[in-house]
Amino acid sequence: MERFAIRGHICYSEDQKKIRTVDQGYVVCEDGKSRGVFETLPEEWRGIPCRDYGDKLIIPGLVDLHVHAPQYTFRGLGMDQELIDWLNTHTFPEEEKYKDTEYAKKAYHIFIEDLLHSATTRACVFATCHKEATLWLMEKMEEAGLAGYVGKVNMDRNSSEGLQEESAQKSAKDTEAWILEAADLTNVKPILTPRFIPTCSDELMEKLSELQKKYQMPAQSHLSENLSEIEWVRQLCPKASCYGDAYRLHGLFGGDCPTIMAHCVYSDEEETRMMKEQGVFIAHCPESNANLASGIAPARRFLDQGLKMGLGTDVAAGTSLSMFRAMAMAIQCSKLRWKLQDQSLPPLTVEEVFYLATKGGGEFFGKVGSLEPGYEFDAVVIDDGILRHARELSTKERLERLIYLAEDRQIDAKYVKGKQVLPIEKNCR
Amino acid sequence: MERFAIRGHICYSEDQKKIRTVDQGYVVCEDGKSRGVFETLPEEWRGIPCRDYGDKLIIPGLVDLHVHAPQYTFRGLGMDQELIDWLNTHTFPEEEKYKDTEYAKKAYHIFIEDLLHSATTRACVFATCHKEATLWLMEKMEEAGLAGYVGKVNMDRNSSEGLQEESAQKSAKDTEAWILEAADLTNVKPILTPRFIPTCSDELMEKLSELQKKYQMPAQSHLSENLSEIEWVRQLCPKASCYGDAYRLHGLFGGDCPTIMAHCVYSDEEETRMMKEQGVFIAHCPESNANLASGIAPARRFLDQGLKMGLGTDVAAGTSLSMFRAMAMAIQCSKLRWKLQDQSLPPLTVEEVFYLATKGGGEFFGKVGSLEPGYEFDAVVIDDGILRHARELSTKERLERLIYLAEDRQIDAKYVKGKQVLPIEKNCR
Repeated sequence: MERFAIRGHICYSEDQKKIRTVDQGYVVCEDGKSRGVFETLPEEWRGIPCRDYGDKLIIPGLVDLHVHAPQYTFRGLGMDQELIDWLNTHTFPEEEKYKDTEYAKKAYHIFIEDLLHSATTRACVFATCHKEATLWLMEKMEEAGLAGYVGKVNMDRNSSEGLQEESAQKSAKDTEAWILEAADLTNVKPILTPRFIPTCSDELMEKLSELQKKYQMPAQSHLSENLSEIEWVRQLCPKASCYGDAYRLHGLFGGDCPTIMAHCVYSDEEETRMMKEQGVFIAHCPESNANLASGIAPARRFLDQGLKMGLGTDVAAGTSLSMFRAMAMAIQCSKLRWKLQDQSLPPLTVEEVFYLATKGGGEFFGKVGSLEPGYEFDAVVIDDGILRHARELSTKERLERLIYLAEDRQIDAKYVKGKQVLPIEKNCR
Repeated sequence: MERFAIRGHICYSEDQKKIRTVDQGYVVCEDGKSRGVFETLPEEWRGIPCRDYGDKLIIPGLVDLHVHAPQYTFRGLGMDQELIDWLNTHTFPEEEKYKDTEYAKKAYHIFIEDLLHSATTRACVFATCHKEATLWLMEKMEEAGLAGYVGKVNMDRNSSEGLQEESAQKSAKDTEAWILEAADLTNVKPILTPRFIPTCSDELMEKLSELQKKYQMPAQSHLSENLSEIEWVRQLCPKASCYGDAYRLHGLFGGDCPTIMAHCVYSDEEETRMMKEQGVFIAHCPESNANLASGIAPARRFLDQGLKMGLGTDVAAGTSLSMFRAMAMAIQCSKLRWKLQDQSLPPLTVEEVFYLATKGGGEFFGKVGSLEPGYEFDAVVIDDGILRHARELSTKERLERLIYLAEDRQIDAKYVKGKQVLPIEKNCR
């Protein structure tokens, strides 16, 4: 049994309304799980190894519920279009390049290093439809010590010729081969990833649903991001009562297998009810929704109605891998939505966005996103010393400040499932 | 005559629609002014000292048209209220502390160091109503090599008791003394700063107008930021036809003396026309307007109507001193405004926000904000090497990426009026 403790100023979400802070507190890790947060180290653990991080902050590792690894190459570029044009102009041509596994390695190497040095410990990642490149990404993410789900993307229609898979059958066959090859991995697992309804034929969706039943796999996709997209889905799936129903009709909308739907900017009451019934997780991606001029999702309504939800950076429609930035944007956009669109939905609070970025998204992985007893030990140690203030700040205020001002260089140490992955020991590189 | 050149990948705004880039180009400085940007160094300047920054980017220094130095102590904190409550709860109690000049020195020291290490070369700064602290701030900004305007704030009503000045007469008298004491400074000059109509009596405004005429000084204030504020002004100044007119009636709304009005979120056609007639500069502060749930200013309309405009960080209603972040937010908020509020006003472009952050705001200072011949030599050298990409990027793309992703640590060198202020020579500290 491996046991150790870390010490510092600890913050974590108790629930959506409350952040608990313990100054100079201890978190105990036993076999990769937290045994809880303590003001003084309990008698039974006296003498276990303890690393004291002094005045630094300790928070649960952050959870990015939606990010596209191959798009990291053009983050911060080409933000001049809405969704469908942006996919055709910027995204599909870049993703085509990943059929060249050497290019993919070069690009994914940078993505993994930057993700490792961020405050994110878990991510749900879209790769491309290329099996080899996707497997390489998964293996290297695992080697780096990260945890999460990665999806080989499926798309057999309405994409660029060089990217689109040649048939539903071939797409499903490649997907099954990929699932089997990825079975050896421990912390980075495969997730079914039909890109979105417009690029997946009914036949492909049926085959993916069969794979899901056979392998009991989670799934991720996109939902109700943009009005033209929604209209397109209406034309493509006239039988569906709403966009979400187009997934549900194929058995790919939650239920037995955990499912993430990114965006939900325009999910109406019916679609929301369907997501709640099916236990679908919403990945709220406010920066992406601003950059592609999609709009602002009614995150407050989803919270109030008790839906499962986390935050996503959605690189590269979102520009930054920083989940702190995602939190800040979630607050800022909720204020603008309240002011400009719907005064019945009050803005999100610091407590709520921190919950979403930790426990809210973490729930997709089981007991993840907290330092409470029984949760997997994902923790990040942050040195906020570069943010000097003339006055004393409480631990809670320091966390609040980080949401708006954190940079990756402040990440001092990182633990995933109890294993320290940052700083990287020099002899391991 | 002092002459030198710097070399690198150069970007600057030619106008609102066009960014000119010159790879491995030269900018020549002569007596603090640019002599222009060249692909090869012209014959006449062969042999002058030249610092080659290799693959780094060179851009004009950025101009922050609106920032509150004393609020830097609580940046990133207390973002849970709208304007008036936020002023009473967070801002006024903090600004009171600056009557203690020792506290002010400690706080302003951090502000100046962080501003120095940012990409901003010029700023229009609100201090507090305390003369001594304001003078200290100005002297130390000048010593650090920064340029700009700093205002001792005026406020004789509707503020907290500990902050409010005891009378219009005392406020004006202190202001005149401060103007005279600040006269020795070269690069950091005084600017008249009535906080906003609600905190300035008619008598005070009249006295400030007299001071303006006597000393031919520029002015800065706030305008039409928040709907409750606008309603309050309507009650306080029933004679004014709009909020802007309340300044104009006292002779403090542009005209002969350059004037900045921050925000203008709700400026209607009449107020906009008045600003254009009077040559008023708008400081567009998108992050602040999101954080205080004020709304989104119609920056596209102001641009199309030919108003003078720049960007402001508005710390601490804005959280960050980064003008890159102000640029990104200006684009993002303009997209949300277009989507949610008014589809007749298309989003801002990268070209436009870069113009606003350089030449647009720079115009307040004269020929500032460009590297074209005759402009004051304010330049920033940026090392974007930490932002690795798997593909080749053009100089224009590297600039675009910085708008979304730049951090202060990437500022490699900085020149203000031809004087190098970063990196700081160790023996000068």
